[in-house]
Amino acid sequence: MDGLFCAESIVVVGVSESEDNLGKNVMANLVNLGYQGKIYAVGPRGGEVLGHPVYRSIAELPGNPELAVILTPARVVHDMLTQCGEKGTRWAVIESAGFQELGTQGEMLEREILKASKRFGLRFVGPNCVGTANTAKGLYTAFVAFGAQFRRGKVAVFAQSGGVGLCLVERLCTSGAGISKFVSMGNKLDLDEADYLAYLMDDPETSVIYFYLEGFKRGRSFADLARRCPKPIILHKSNTGAMSLTIAHSHTAVLAADDQVVDAVCRESGILRVHSISEAANAAKGLCLPPLKGKNLAVLSRSGGHAVLAADVCASYGFRLPPLERDILDEAQSRGRAGVIRLGNPLDLGDIFDFSFYISIVEKVLRQNDIDGVVFIYVSQMLTEREATRRFVENMAALSLQSGKPVATVMDIPFEERVYLEKNSNFPFFLEPAEAVKALAVLSEWSKTDASDRLKPESDTAVPFHDALTIPVKEIEKWFVDIERQNRQPLLHEALDLLDLTGIPTVPWHMAGSLVEALEASENLGFPVALKAVSPSLLHKSDKGGLALDVRDVESLRNEWHRLQKVSDDIVGIVVQKMTTASRELVAGGKRDPSFGPVVLTGLGGIMVEVMKDVSMRLAPIDTDAAMEMLGELSGRRILGRFRGMREADLEAAARILVQVSLLMHHFPQIREMDLNPVSLDDEGKGAVALDARLLIGE
Amino acid sequence: MDGLFCAESIVVVGVSESEDNLGKNVMANLVNLGYQGKIYAVGPRGGEVLGHPVYRSIAELPGNPELAVILTPARVVHDMLTQCGEKGTRWAVIESAGFQELGTQGEMLEREILKASKRFGLRFVGPNCVGTANTAKGLYTAFVAFGAQFRRGKVAVFAQSGGVGLCLVERLCTSGAGISKFVSMGNKLDLDEADYLAYLMDDPETSVIYFYLEGFKRGRSFADLARRCPKPIILHKSNTGAMSLTIAHSHTAVLAADDQVVDAVCRESGILRVHSISEAANAAKGLCLPPLKGKNLAVLSRSGGHAVLAADVCASYGFRLPPLERDILDEAQSRGRAGVIRLGNPLDLGDIFDFSFYISIVEKVLRQNDIDGVVFIYVSQMLTEREATRRFVENMAALSLQSGKPVATVMDIPFEERVYLEKNSNFPFFLEPAEAVKALAVLSEWSKTDASDRLKPESDTAVPFHDALTIPVKEIEKWFVDIERQNRQPLLHEALDLLDLTGIPTVPWHMAGSLVEALEASENLGFPVALKAVSPSLLHKSDKGGLALDVRDVESLRNEWHRLQKVSDDIVGIVVQKMTTASRELVAGGKRDPSFGPVVLTGLGGIMVEVMKDVSMRLAPIDTDAAMEMLGELSGRRILGRFRGMREADLEAAARILVQVSLLMHHFPQIREMDLNPVSLDDEGKGAVALDARLLIGE
Repeated sequence: MDGLFCAESIVVVGVSESEDNLGKNVMANLVNLGYQGKIYAVGPRGGEVLGHPVYRSIAELPGNPELAVILTPARVVHDMLTQCGEKGTRWAVIESAGFQELGTQGEMLEREILKASKRFGLRFVGPNCVGTANTAKGLYTAFVAFGAQFRRGKVAVFAQSGGVGLCLVERLCTSGAGISKFVSMGNKLDLDEADYLAYLMDDPETSVIYFYLEGFKRGRSFADLARRCPKPIILHKSNTGAMSLTIAHSHTAVLAADDQVVDAVCRESGILRVHSISEAANAAKGLCLPPLKGKNLAVLSRSGGHAVLAADVCASYGFRLPPLERDILDEAQSRGRAGVIRLGNPLDLGDIFDFSFYISIVEKVLRQNDIDGVVFIYVSQMLTEREATRRFVENMAALSLQSGKPVATVMDIPFEERVYLEKNSNFPFFLEPAEAVKALAVLSEWSKTDASDRLKPESDTAVPFHDALTIPVKEIEKWFVDIERQNRQPLLHEALDLLDLTGIPTVPWHMAGSLVEALEASENLGFPVALKAVSPSLLHKSDKGGLALDVRDVESLRNEWHRLQKVSDDIVGIVVQKMTTASRELVAGGKRDPSFGPVVLTGLGGIMVEVMKDVSMRLAPIDTDAAMEMLGELSGRRILGRFRGMREADLEAAARILVQVSLLMHHFPQIREMDLNPVSLDDEGKGAVALDARLLIGE
Repeated sequence: MDGLFCAESIVVVGVSESEDNLGKNVMANLVNLGYQGKIYAVGPRGGEVLGHPVYRSIAELPGNPELAVILTPARVVHDMLTQCGEKGTRWAVIESAGFQELGTQGEMLEREILKASKRFGLRFVGPNCVGTANTAKGLYTAFVAFGAQFRRGKVAVFAQSGGVGLCLVERLCTSGAGISKFVSMGNKLDLDEADYLAYLMDDPETSVIYFYLEGFKRGRSFADLARRCPKPIILHKSNTGAMSLTIAHSHTAVLAADDQVVDAVCRESGILRVHSISEAANAAKGLCLPPLKGKNLAVLSRSGGHAVLAADVCASYGFRLPPLERDILDEAQSRGRAGVIRLGNPLDLGDIFDFSFYISIVEKVLRQNDIDGVVFIYVSQMLTEREATRRFVENMAALSLQSGKPVATVMDIPFEERVYLEKNSNFPFFLEPAEAVKALAVLSEWSKTDASDRLKPESDTAVPFHDALTIPVKEIEKWFVDIERQNRQPLLHEALDLLDLTGIPTVPWHMAGSLVEALEASENLGFPVALKAVSPSLLHKSDKGGLALDVRDVESLRNEWHRLQKVSDDIVGIVVQKMTTASRELVAGGKRDPSFGPVVLTGLGGIMVEVMKDVSMRLAPIDTDAAMEMLGELSGRRILGRFRGMREADLEAAARILVQVSLLMHHFPQIREMDLNPVSLDDEGKGAVALDARLLIGE
């Protein structure tokens, strides 16, 4: 995308001299914010804008622009694009609105645009977007006229809403962090989140990646790239509830993905998900600091109260505050005036007001081996030593870079001084202890990920498989034939058949068409047994009307058989199952997400899933390592260990089932949902068996 | 405390001409920030400060100051206080440090100060504090020289750390909210959080109360007052973890209270607990708006992305966005230029840029009956219509006051414009949608509380009792006599005795001293039974070595009896209990909190308490209404209803037990902890019985 961000010549299409012309704003940004390349303007009415002639057509242009910025009415965009293509332009930013977000006619126009662009191999941002920026080149294509350049920095801000993106840009630029590139993605008709991420992964100007998305166009590819991305990704995925859906349709015309799937994708891909602009800004600031390699912090504060706040937040994020070395404490003590401050970590500097001392003590603390990072809280409501205060963040940044350890600097200072820093600081600073510690928590989480581990070669499944668990795909394909041909849903015994075919253990079972068969099956399985009526009409019933548990003898079996025949008038048989006695139950299931495709899910059976909604999810397929991680993520995981006199549960057997479910979901896109509930889980080494199975197949 | 906040004459004790004298800062604040009363300065070296003579002693003063601000070294404070008392002064702010926070000698000095103050009925703030402010009188006693007055407003900021308090003051004053009174409480040697709250409840200048506390001096009184407080209270209670404890000792010398008790107290007293300065500021801003009487909002936004963000947050806080009336939508549509914005709620105003239209549409939306409040999101990164932008928050505030409904205004504007608003706005504004909606959520929660209901007369127990459940206190007193005399802990059968005495149902039981007695008891109770070995050494063991469950016949009883005799060498007998079969279990317990006194607790037995830590707490005593609320607060409460084929559990029986436990905790301060675990809970109407009881008594 260097053609997009580093074009040496740009044409703005849709420029006029009239007062409210937006193309003029693009021209103003290009002219005023340091862009060094060639600028052309095109508009049907001609004239001159900011010293540049406005050509009446693209064909007339004296040069061949690398990049086109298009702001014409929607209906002529595809025509402009064609003209650009003919001039050799291969990149465009289409800012015009009035496409899919307005319905059928807009969608038609979009198809025209795609056709035109494909003809020339032209790629484009938008339509329906605010524009782009590359701070390194002073290249600003936004139709919003900015008063000044963005602060140059390491954070890329790519947003599906220009308004939200610019709000974050403003926030970052006024808190010491800066921007590498900015894109307002608009309708993502051509370039989408996966394209942008692929580019940013290798962009040397960017070290922190932020996305604001209202929906995914290629969620699966985005997730696959994210897994291998060597840079931290902050994702603000909005449009989470039904209520925002109406406006999202009208705004950038996307469908909301299942929000829990988004959470699961973020967790497994190492994406940090945020839910507000402040949270995003704060995280980005943290990630601009040198890595935080351990959980040991030192807190130095000019206010005891602020130190207490910092210590609280440190504790809640699992940070430790190890003792500071004796000579550091001694030095602090020798400098204290009234001698009222006790020494420790947090170190309350109270009445010591001496900038060179602050610098020297932070330097020493950073040299202490078991300190991984520092929070320095500078508090003064008095306008004293203005110059020193203003340089302070810079000093802390220098120490931080020197030592390779992060220093998060909190500046609680008078209004005018804060405004000065917001306007001028080139290093991130924070306004209260909680912000600083949270930012370090984000940084710590990221610093822990092994970047080399993330640079795995791209694979078809995008999951590194550490085990060789497979399923007999060919044989299973045959299972689908009849059911699909008959355009119906599988019945219980068919679902159990599928599990047997797949290699997922089921509790011994037999489909009995007659009482005699049922009696025989019970003899073979051994009493007690469970009986489950099989019928198409019972498939979608959640109540247990068709069920008889703990049938202990021939007499009871006879009675229950006759009772079950009456629960529905389309009984095709009764499944006889051996009763199990294992003490723990799981749910294992799969679903197909509209954005991310197949997903596998697990939870502890009974209360934990039903009442506590305690589940874990992954994109399918997974390997057993991932399955074991899923089980370890459950809040109630203690129950699976040695618990209340029980031995450890057979987690590996459970994990194998999850892997097999994930492989079914992966290989058979016709499965929309599947549910093994419950899976009975025995003690370690004794296996796990599915007791029940439901599948939903087809569109 | 009008003498403290509205004194007509003030003496500052500890003033000198020297450069770093802090008393001079107090003088500067009094002289420069609008204080109209008489100002005196006292300092041993005399001289003149800011045009005021420095008297060498308090006795020399030509007048009788109402209020003294003391900044002398700690060792002479009590002497200064005495001199003030003799001059008729009845209020003081002691800002000097060097007291309990420094150990034994400081504590001695504190006792001297208390003695001196009591002699004259003099009340004081501090010691070890920054000072106070009353914006209505321009009365600032802080030793920090402020450049300007605080913005006058309705929020009282009372903080145990001056630094944290001033940080919030700054935050509020630069976001359109203002301050009524400020107090840095320091060591709370005399005036404490309960005194301040009692004053603020009636202070006409204050309508939102904020406390920053690192510990409670009179937690129970504070909670009792909070329950009856007709104004919203925001509590930032820090010092929550062991890690902050070290610095809190040195800072204001307090002990950390059990943090979960603080949460419980906040919940039941209607206190909003916050965990950061931003959260506090945001909540206070919300509470400055007119009440939000329902959950229906309208979101109007100039940016579609911001509207999506707002809608997401609205959904997560349970707000609804009902359709806007037809004529409002029609008007918006007729104004849209490019016609690209679809209409709804949120209403995306996109390309309509017209301030008088904004005002007229908000006015109409506020008149819509089923709209309870408005979020208006103003977004512009261009410096256009600067004057109109600057007046916009003010316009929204006027509409809000007029209609009596809140309008939360989000201003996402260029840096210079934001700074202008921060400096000048007298009405709260927000910087992003999430902030505004969260503030409205706080407001909605508060608006729902019935103020008249909170103005209950003060009662001894401070809990309104709707039922007449009592316990036989006199009889129970006798139960303690022997155990306390022998300075030991009660054994199992004694604990069960106490329950029987109290009226808490126990499962039928008998203490058997011999096998014969045990056999007889089993006959009477009926098999199966449970056997529990009773011995002092088993009291503190958590394992179940001394237990035999489901003993079904005489033979097993004999075997188990002999086995249990051997589990410890101080067996005094064996409790024989009837086995119960109820399907649900609770834990009911009590503990004594160092700050708040007796507390009652409940949770669902087994996994939900052990693994999920799902408990609910209240200050004891409680009535059955409160007990029912506690059960309703449990995350797993669904299990107590109709669940998995079970009938509703007997919640009233459970509630009665909780009330009885709370009454035991209330009447018998010698009980430190008690634990009924499990309480077996039968179906509705069938009661609940305690199966086990442990008590810890004495200091």
